[in-house]
Amino acid sequence: MKDKFYQYIQDLQDTITKKLEEVDGKVAFKEDIWKRPEGGGGRTRVIENGNVFEKGGVNISGVHGELPKSMQDYFGVKDANFFACGLSLVLHPKNPMVPTVHANWRYFEMYDQKGNIVDQWFGGGQDLTPYYLFEEDAIHFHSICKITCDKHDDTLYETYKKRCDEYFWNTHRNEARGIGGLFFDYCKATASRNMNDWYNFVKEIGDSFLNSYIPIVIKRNSLAYTSKHKDWQEIRRGRYVEFNLVHDKGTLFGLRTNGRIESILMSLPPHVQWRYDHHPEKGSEEEKLVQVLKEPKTWV
Amino acid sequence: MKDKFYQYIQDLQDTITKKLEEVDGKVAFKEDIWKRPEGGGGRTRVIENGNVFEKGGVNISGVHGELPKSMQDYFGVKDANFFACGLSLVLHPKNPMVPTVHANWRYFEMYDQKGNIVDQWFGGGQDLTPYYLFEEDAIHFHSICKITCDKHDDTLYETYKKRCDEYFWNTHRNEARGIGGLFFDYCKATASRNMNDWYNFVKEIGDSFLNSYIPIVIKRNSLAYTSKHKDWQEIRRGRYVEFNLVHDKGTLFGLRTNGRIESILMSLPPHVQWRYDHHPEKGSEEEKLVQVLKEPKTWV
Repeated sequence: MKDKFYQYIQDLQDTITKKLEEVDGKVAFKEDIWKRPEGGGGRTRVIENGNVFEKGGVNISGVHGELPKSMQDYFGVKDANFFACGLSLVLHPKNPMVPTVHANWRYFEMYDQKGNIVDQWFGGGQDLTPYYLFEEDAIHFHSICKITCDKHDDTLYETYKKRCDEYFWNTHRNEARGIGGLFFDYCKATASRNMNDWYNFVKEIGDSFLNSYIPIVIKRNSLAYTSKHKDWQEIRRGRYVEFNLVHDKGTLFGLRTNGRIESILMSLPPHVQWRYDHHPEKGSEEEKLVQVLKEPKTWV
Repeated sequence: MKDKFYQYIQDLQDTITKKLEEVDGKVAFKEDIWKRPEGGGGRTRVIENGNVFEKGGVNISGVHGELPKSMQDYFGVKDANFFACGLSLVLHPKNPMVPTVHANWRYFEMYDQKGNIVDQWFGGGQDLTPYYLFEEDAIHFHSICKITCDKHDDTLYETYKKRCDEYFWNTHRNEARGIGGLFFDYCKATASRNMNDWYNFVKEIGDSFLNSYIPIVIKRNSLAYTSKHKDWQEIRRGRYVEFNLVHDKGTLFGLRTNGRIESILMSLPPHVQWRYDHHPEKGSEEEKLVQVLKEPKTWV
């Protein structure tokens, strides 16, 4: 399973970066191959200062070895070995009318001292962070998520949409990071669903990504914007940074497993602002977004 | 003691903000008085878009009530009440030749259910974060710290300078946030030093702040800079954000005690950049700074 999934995310990285370069039309991804001293490594691909994408990364990694002490405590196990691989992407568009997107699909195996698999699961999800809210974009993104989930089980979308809203919650701001999508974790074999079923589910989700995001990029990138819109985008990006550095388990996992800092923190936006006690004007488009973030909506 | 120290920091806030407004010459501090639902409150003063200061805050707060659960676990106590007050300041200058400064001086009391003081201590410190390194500025800042400490005990500077270097260490970047200063905590009564001695020490440190920082501001603010210098300042500010959101105990304390978010996060810089895998040019002034941050120096 680990080889099959690692092969899949390598191919998916190629598919996604090729399409994004085509959409951007100006710059190509810069590739860095890196090794983790304790085992494994990754292939980081970053795009910067494009026509469409101000900054973004589509990274894969496959790491293995002894489970670090902090992760042993987290999982409540002792002296275990692990393998983890996944694809992580974050895209920060230049035009504030185009939403930021994040996705991550991953697979985890844990071994005893004899090398037997003692636990294994899939996890991941994708979510959208708009700066200006176009309801039809939210509906489009969530529709693709729902259609893809429904092929496997018509209860999955509702469950994973709810978990996504719960996970990407900036507790100290009492608001969501964005308008959600899917979030799933610890997807393990059950009586009704074996690991291969989960593989097929995650693969179908990964394959649906470009359809969920690219039509929105193409539609909104042609809209005009002013420096006022850009300021708002940069202020909201500050909330994105706050979530990733204060709350995000993926970021913490990377730091705890001696991950490659530049690959982990490629998720941080290029230009960010913090203003003291900033509030959007009453009745403005900016305020409309914040209201939706305060109370997650049902989109489909 | 709590009334005496709270009065002191109120007066010190007035002294500092008055002087900073005089130095800035363009904008005044905006004041917000706030209340904490569980007890206490604060007086936040923020400056933005000044001639000299792009953003900064000089805040005082005095909070009390039941010790929040997370803090009980942290201190290893049960059902305690507390009082905490302090002054916190962060100044982000516009000119990249002028360093950012941070300071915090605070007093903490813990009570049993009958209201008896069961523990009390002072804490605090101040540290400098330059974007371009002028060794004479580092020496000036540290000299004022040392002279002030030496009046009380000539072992204090060395101890607190070392703690400052250890505390403001961005572990995930393996570099210091800045060039240090002083950091002290849990300053409690001992056979040779009672709480009043500690009060006098902290007061002297607080009183020395303007002398340690303002001469540097005046000297460096007249230097010319380009957009390249500004970019570097904004990239380094990214490391400041990383430290404050990932590692800083003061920020976490604020979030855990239901502090006022805007007062806590006023420490975040106004304009920040993150670039993928950015490294300064070999032999440049930017590289010279990074080398000093990798290995804290003895300045005096």
